[in-house]
Amino acid sequence: MSSIKPVEWLGDRLMIIDQTRLPQHEIYLELADVHQVAEAIKSLKVRGAPSIGVAAAYGIALGAQQIETQDLEEFRKAYKNVSAEIAATRPTARNLFMAVERMDDIVGRAPDVISAKDRLAAEAEKIHDAEIESTRLIAQNGAALIRDGDTILTHCNTGPLATTGSGTALGVIIEAFRQGKKIEVLATETRPLCQGARLTAWELRREHVPFRLITDSMAGHFMKGARVDMVVVGADRIARNGDTANKIGTYSIAVLAHENGIPFYIAAPSTTFDQRIATGDEIVIEERSPDEVTHLYGKRTAPEGIEVCNPAFDVTPANYITGFITENGILKS
Amino acid sequence: MSSIKPVEWLGDRLMIIDQTRLPQHEIYLELADVHQVAEAIKSLKVRGAPSIGVAAAYGIALGAQQIETQDLEEFRKAYKNVSAEIAATRPTARNLFMAVERMDDIVGRAPDVISAKDRLAAEAEKIHDAEIESTRLIAQNGAALIRDGDTILTHCNTGPLATTGSGTALGVIIEAFRQGKKIEVLATETRPLCQGARLTAWELRREHVPFRLITDSMAGHFMKGARVDMVVVGADRIARNGDTANKIGTYSIAVLAHENGIPFYIAAPSTTFDQRIATGDEIVIEERSPDEVTHLYGKRTAPEGIEVCNPAFDVTPANYITGFITENGILKS
Repeated sequence: MSSIKPVEWLGDRLMIIDQTRLPQHEIYLELADVHQVAEAIKSLKVRGAPSIGVAAAYGIALGAQQIETQDLEEFRKAYKNVSAEIAATRPTARNLFMAVERMDDIVGRAPDVISAKDRLAAEAEKIHDAEIESTRLIAQNGAALIRDGDTILTHCNTGPLATTGSGTALGVIIEAFRQGKKIEVLATETRPLCQGARLTAWELRREHVPFRLITDSMAGHFMKGARVDMVVVGADRIARNGDTANKIGTYSIAVLAHENGIPFYIAAPSTTFDQRIATGDEIVIEERSPDEVTHLYGKRTAPEGIEVCNPAFDVTPANYITGFITENGILKS
Repeated sequence: MSSIKPVEWLGDRLMIIDQTRLPQHEIYLELADVHQVAEAIKSLKVRGAPSIGVAAAYGIALGAQQIETQDLEEFRKAYKNVSAEIAATRPTARNLFMAVERMDDIVGRAPDVISAKDRLAAEAEKIHDAEIESTRLIAQNGAALIRDGDTILTHCNTGPLATTGSGTALGVIIEAFRQGKKIEVLATETRPLCQGARLTAWELRREHVPFRLITDSMAGHFMKGARVDMVVVGADRIARNGDTANKIGTYSIAVLAHENGIPFYIAAPSTTFDQRIATGDEIVIEERSPDEVTHLYGKRTAPEGIEVCNPAFDVTPANYITGFITENGILKS
């Protein structure tokens, strides 16, 4: 199987697979400047916390490359706009801000414009390589938790598309399958944008992992019926106390797993952990467009002119989390 | 506001509003024989446990009317097919079987064909009238539980469309609003068929009740955030011990309400209670077409050729249910 490259740096532009068009259309887009990268992150053409971090770093490197001055002070001033444009795309994923901070730090320490540009590109590649290596280790560490015969429930999409590497939660599942374990996956469709139905289904199918697609509302029913042995999902931001922001619906699944005595794991690289915040109360939850709930692919079903809530994430308190699967091993909650 | 007539008996045919076309199209269909009524129930053109029961009764009356014999034995033989066709439409709603049993009983006791036909039509109208009266009382009994300022979460559709009367859970909510209580509703879209987004949103809007539409996966998030004061939903079948089958996703909401200390009520007429079964384990859960999950609003989202689960209902154990709102008052679980 050829591996997917959701984000690829071409030296003077960034190539991504358009995740909003999958699974029907496998379309690669070349992003020629920082504005195009920012738009791609905002509109979820590139998504998943680790992939967002990688695209953000490359977007900043690209934007910096196109600043036309040799004066370091002028460059730093222009760079601030580039960095700010990327930082303003989405509020929740920790990886985005980690990338921005690392890039800002490079610019702060560079002796001149040419080396600043070179070092920014090198730093973005380093962030990318680190995510690939982290998710490879996460997949291996997590696979050890899965037993032959297990049925594993997962939510949203956390595979190669979401991470640029092996995947977090889905990486764990795919690695267990590659090791020859007979497993089955229950994948939630993940409304409103159906990352489970569109992307997880597409990735699991490419890997020939047996799975069944369910609506989000069915997860509890299957857990109650003793048809789920383990839950593993990804994360967008993890507070110091272990409270975890992830795709809307994760909290519900965690409570239902707890109620039914099913282990509930978060798989995430260390770049998703936010040491600056004590608890999940400090995590900003992105509110997205009402159209995502009332429409899909431009087709409206709900009546016109109604009120909608559309938080993209929720926060799962640490006490519902059995453990965190990281590149450094399994951390108990 | 003109009231909706989801099911109307015209003496020699049955008129229904096609619930699969709402909210975009308000189309009334005339069903001319028992086969058309059976098809309408199967395809959810008429749906909601009480409305199914009423349509089933009229469908049987209509089918019996069209049996062309004056011989009672021949009539009873042909009637069996009519009754069996209706009984085979959907397995879960108790109201359907209650209606079938009552109609069968009429035929068993009728002295001749003419009076059998007359009594069947009269019995169907009696079932219809009783559902209207029951839901009127349910709405009144339940409204007393709602306080000024409450935010009430509901799932699926349980208004006039679902009941032919005032509604069960939605009837309670609408009655509280009519009494002048300042309330707000959180309505789940209810995947896969979006009865919440399509029908509940349409009914609440007609009544001018303030509400916000959410995806099913958001219910837990709002309950955790202390933004829900009460949950009220309908039921398709209730066992002697109080275990309740209702739209898939109800169990999850009940667990999340329990975890967050929020009262969780079932609103249902006595025709939904099934005295013949001891617990929810005996309730048959309908498995519907995979297309309902792989498609959203008629458009395919998931890749082709994948496995899907699509249970239309789940069973909520009685211990998660605060009480049952019935025409006879509030029963504690």
